Amino acid sequence: MDKQRKHLTQQIIQAGQFLYRQGWSPATSSNYSTRLSAEQALLTVSGRHKGELTAEDVLVVDWQGQSLEEGKKPSAETLLHTQLYQWRAEIGAVLHTHSNDACVLSLLEQSTELRLHGYELQKAFTGYTTHESTLVVPIFANDQTIPRLATQVQQWLDTHPDCVGYLIRGHGLYTWGAQMSDALRHIEAFEALFACELKLRALRAV
Amino acid sequence: MDKQRKHLTQQIIQAGQFLYRQGWSPATSSNYSTRLSAEQALLTVSGRHKGELTAEDVLVVDWQGQSLEEGKKPSAETLLHTQLYQWRAEIGAVLHTHSNDACVLSLLEQSTELRLHGYELQKAFTGYTTHESTLVVPIFANDQTIPRLATQVQQWLDTHPDCVGYLIRGHGLYTWGAQMSDALRHIEAFEALFACELKLRALRAV
Amino acid sequence: MDKQRKHLTQQIIQAGQFLYRQGWSPATSSNYSTRLSAEQALLTVSGRHKGELTAEDVLVVDWQGQSLEEGKKPSAETLLHTQLYQWRAEIGAVLHTHSNDACVLSLLEQSTELRLHGYELQKAFTGYTTHESTLVVPIFANDQTIPRLATQVQQWLDTHPDCVGYLIRGHGLYTWGAQMSDALRHIEAFEALFACELKLRALRAV
Amino acid sequence: MDKQRKHLTQQIIQAGQFLYRQGWSPATSSNYSTRLSAEQALLTVSGRHKGELTAEDVLVVDWQGQSLEEGKKPSAETLLHTQLYQWRAEIGAVLHTHSNDACVLSLLEQSTELRLHGYELQKAFTGYTTHESTLVVPIFANDQTIPRLATQVQQWLDTHPDCVGYLIRGHGLYTWGAQMSDALRHIEAFEALFACELKLRALRAV
Repeated sequence: MDKQRKHLTQQIIQAGQFLYRQGWSPATSSNYSTRLSAEQALLTVSGRHKGELTAEDVLVVDWQGQSLEEGKKPSAETLLHTQLYQWRAEIGAVLHTHSNDACVLSLLEQSTELRLHGYELQKAFTGYTTHESTLVVPIFANDQTIPRLATQVQQWLDTHPDCVGYLIRGHGLYTWGAQMSDALRHIEAFEALFACELKLRALRAV
Repeated sequence: MDKQRKHLTQQIIQAGQFLYRQGWSPATSSNYSTRLSAEQALLTVSGRHKGELTAEDVLVVDWQGQSLEEGKKPSAETLLHTQLYQWRAEIGAVLHTHSNDACVLSLLEQSTELRLHGYELQKAFTGYTTHESTLVVPIFANDQTIPRLATQVQQWLDTHPDCVGYLIRGHGLYTWGAQMSDALRHIEAFEALFACELKLRALRAV
Repeated sequence: MDKQRKHLTQQIIQAGQFLYRQGWSPATSSNYSTRLSAEQALLTVSGRHKGELTAEDVLVVDWQGQSLEEGKKPSAETLLHTQLYQWRAEIGAVLHTHSNDACVLSLLEQSTELRLHGYELQKAFTGYTTHESTLVVPIFANDQTIPRLATQVQQWLDTHPDCVGYLIRGHGLYTWGAQMSDALRHIEAFEALFACELKLRALRAV
Repeated sequence: MDKQRKHLTQQIIQAGQFLYRQGWSPATSSNYSTRLSAEQALLTVSGRHKGELTAEDVLVVDWQGQSLEEGKKPSAETLLHTQLYQWRAEIGAVLHTHSNDACVLSLLEQSTELRLHGYELQKAFTGYTTHESTLVVPIFANDQTIPRLATQVQQWLDTHPDCVGYLIRGHGLYTWGAQMSDALRHIEAFEALFACELKLRALRAV
């Protein structure tokens, strides 16, 4: 195993330990990836315990989502990762998680866009410099047919070059960054904002 | 102590450490078991701290729930474990926990069935492949007379071959799996779904 | 330092590490004690960080609540500990904690008694064998004059020999046990029941 | 690096590890400082992961908020720290955090002051000796122009010599103490009180 792959594998393993410990990747859900080259990514194998990943639990895929390693099956949602690497050359890591708050907020929000406004923490996202901005997070209907879901996502990405993440209803969050550390910062910021949004909705209504 | 028992004992000890740390087995509540053979299971001794189990805190029971080790008293709920091993030969581990969310949701739900629908995480259960399925979790009234409660459970199991777990009202959850890792994945998935369900009920009502 | 004191001091230190980590003893609040003899107890010194206690942070007090160690000031609430050791010879440890849930529930409950019923976890308390029992927890008004508060508590204890704990409004919980492990089990059970009770009250009202 | 700076740097690093672990400094948010001398403070560098700070992640600033170390950029909010050290000579540490509860409560509270009353935990603040006192926490509108925000804060400080902390709406908490341990105790107490206040508001309304 070459040095770069070893390094990126370690990043995925450590991201999994953190995200599992936070409760954002329960019950073998979630999948994570990093860009390996201009045409390949390193991705988690389907169905593994995300807090206990080993080097055996990642595999190389091409942009068509095909496994380049015999005997290893990539996540069913591989295309949702690879379309992001093709969308923007500066994306180096993609994280998909299944937190309770992301799940609940996506089911609760009736519109197809969650709009976050007035939070200082919006500044954690690359390109956002003030709480007076509005962070728009699209919500896609869940779909077990991933190519069809990827088409929906692609239409949004093509028309929203500043997109930093999206929700799938009743399912979870996709976010990304130039480095794994950026993708992790985005997850933390989204989870904090989702938690605040849920508390505010509960309390403003009473 | 033979090698297999040592291995299974270790699985129970580690499951306890995890489940206690999650807050799902507080105050010496809960009990865990693994299948030892076609006629015996290894089960936690009554009343022990579930985060601090040792090899002394498990004992062998037969399908009638009788202790096969002098001086060790099995959990009062032993029959609820052994009936599952008799129900399906492929079950290798049974976990019973007392989380706050399981307790609250079972008291809140007025009907005798909790119906979970629309969650991607339903796919964490063996046999479920889409969020469009409905996961039915029966809720039994709590009863200190365990043989009577076991009879109620047996009637459900006999008519619902796809059952993956059940709730006892104001008490807790029973779930299982082919291996301990499967039973733990089911617990994590149930707890995530219970948490989502409670948040959604609170927020949809406001 | 004799062996018994060393052992009991270690129990207090470890209890503090656990209770602080759970968030039940924030900001130097709370105090803990163990019986040292028929006339003395070992108690935490006032104002220390409960997750970082050392052997220096406990002192010996008599039943009048007087420090028997020069230069060490006992907790302001010492009399609330010593009255319990005098009340029942079988009490070996007393824990007072300040969890958010205990605080909120004591402020929310309008009557002077919290009544817990229908929870399997009531069986974690010595003497309770069924969820069909009712666990009555008195709630006393907070009072900075501890002797006056102790008088209120004494009246309750004298008329309720089965009392396993009490709340002080906007303040926290007192509970106890034959051993430190019993007192800790009672804390865990109370905290689980308080959490369930708060969730049920919120959800039953919506 | 002299011994005192090494010691104070270590305090900031450990505070970050604690505050991040508690979830109060997510996604590189927050900033912390300690007084270095009568005219200088040690402060966190802008944009670092608060749970993984190293000695490289702090820098010396003067009371005008200017970096005294080439190549290191202080937090954008430096003036909010330095004004406190100038306000009171006894302040030795200032902590600014971004917890979800501080954020939500500051957005929920319609007035410009949060008033906390009836909690025993108010006694965790230097100068408060009874739950019958009222702890007033001003809430300032968030503002990306820090000198303008600092002017608002200064007006409050000048007229409220007993102030122990303040909120910025949708943003977070500022609190302080003679030592880092005092500032940390204040954070813990504020977070417990904010959590209680949110639960009470939710439950009293239902």
